[in-house]
Amino acid sequence: MLNLILVMIVTIVCNELLGREGIKIYQDTDCFNFSLDSILLANFVSIPKCCKKIVDLCCGNAPIPLYLSLRTNSSIIGVEIQEFSFNLACESVKINNKENIEILNQDLKGVSKILGGNIFDVVTCNPPFFKLGENNLNPDIRKQIARHEVMCTLEDVIKEAKTLLKNKGVLALVHRPERLPEILELMRKYKIAAKRIRFVYPKEKSVANHVLIEGVKGSKEGSLKILEPLVVYDKNGNWTDEIIKIYNGEE
Amino acid sequence: MLNLILVMIVTIVCNELLGREGIKIYQDTDCFNFSLDSILLANFVSIPKCCKKIVDLCCGNAPIPLYLSLRTNSSIIGVEIQEFSFNLACESVKINNKENIEILNQDLKGVSKILGGNIFDVVTCNPPFFKLGENNLNPDIRKQIARHEVMCTLEDVIKEAKTLLKNKGVLALVHRPERLPEILELMRKYKIAAKRIRFVYPKEKSVANHVLIEGVKGSKEGSLKILEPLVVYDKNGNWTDEIIKIYNGEE
Repeated sequence: MLNLILVMIVTIVCNELLGREGIKIYQDTDCFNFSLDSILLANFVSIPKCCKKIVDLCCGNAPIPLYLSLRTNSSIIGVEIQEFSFNLACESVKINNKENIEILNQDLKGVSKILGGNIFDVVTCNPPFFKLGENNLNPDIRKQIARHEVMCTLEDVIKEAKTLLKNKGVLALVHRPERLPEILELMRKYKIAAKRIRFVYPKEKSVANHVLIEGVKGSKEGSLKILEPLVVYDKNGNWTDEIIKIYNGEE
Repeated sequence: MLNLILVMIVTIVCNELLGREGIKIYQDTDCFNFSLDSILLANFVSIPKCCKKIVDLCCGNAPIPLYLSLRTNSSIIGVEIQEFSFNLACESVKINNKENIEILNQDLKGVSKILGGNIFDVVTCNPPFFKLGENNLNPDIRKQIARHEVMCTLEDVIKEAKTLLKNKGVLALVHRPERLPEILELMRKYKIAAKRIRFVYPKEKSVANHVLIEGVKGSKEGSLKILEPLVVYDKNGNWTDEIIKIYNGEE
């Protein structure tokens, strides 16, 4: 039996204050919770005006589809290879009555054969960050798959995203800054021009610990923007105003 | 005749306050002045403890060699293809009595045949930023050569740097953030692992306008650090404390 608990992404208090719809998400505290980086990515990604179809690869328990559903009425598909995360995602979609979100229990590699190629406006992904052989593998196989490139590599993600995306469609990823050279090289290889990058710093005067990156399929290179830094904690160890706003869906 | 004027990189007042040696630099105000990005690069680059030989490619009127001479007693060679800048650089070296700086009036392409390959601890370069065909060429041929890739491309710089550098030698560049994907790909191509990147923002909450990047020849990838942002102007339009410190050689 999964040990399910109910957690609010956006707290009830904030929702009432802000008049925003609260979102609930099922999590398995024995395994792991959704992480802030997913929220940051779902906030960061550009959603084109006429966006109709979005797919989130490695969707886990679906924090990105759920957050995106606050920003758009597009159809949103989440793809998750692990059955236990897929089940949590389905429960979360159901309890939030999100009819525009569909979750698939599929390997992302080749998922365009099921979903269709060249039809998505946006692809998002918070992929496994760690290459095999570079970090100790977590003994929990579920964590291994979520964090390490056991079932898919960065190249698998970018290659599949390219196939899924329309021409001029948007790919947005969150990743570790150490992998930036490889991310940019793979985006170039698959003709996705990097357009916006934002680095996430745990606090001021620190080294970045995440990178948010967005590219456009088939677009011309040369207009990449490095956006202002995003700082998570203030001097007192509290979330900065910007993070609170993002978390509450206000930005 | 060159219209020479004498400008202080480090102001006399600050030198007296700080007990630092003042540096003078000859500039041709009809053409262009040294720019802050050169100072930032000369401050940013890591100088290894046992550093003996440094070369600065595209040295212009030698702001980088002069600034570096405040940080190290290494031999510093500046390479400049344009004769008028070479002449200014030589005058500046002479007036500052910098016996460890030598300036060559050479094309950087193939300069390792003159200087020797695999012998430099550090290569720095503030290269022309603009690709041919992407920006209007400046009608002044001297500015064209300094700003546009008329005489050398980014690949020429990185390729020659690789040849000049020892194994584990350091390459440091300043460039435009738009070119980041290409810079990182070329560094990978020439086996120079990116290790440190710092983005320069003209002010808070702005888009970065320069990138400082450092890599190590023959090193393993995967430990790239994105350093804290460097902000040039404060809210009142004055240099930030950090920029003043860098400019005064205090950091």
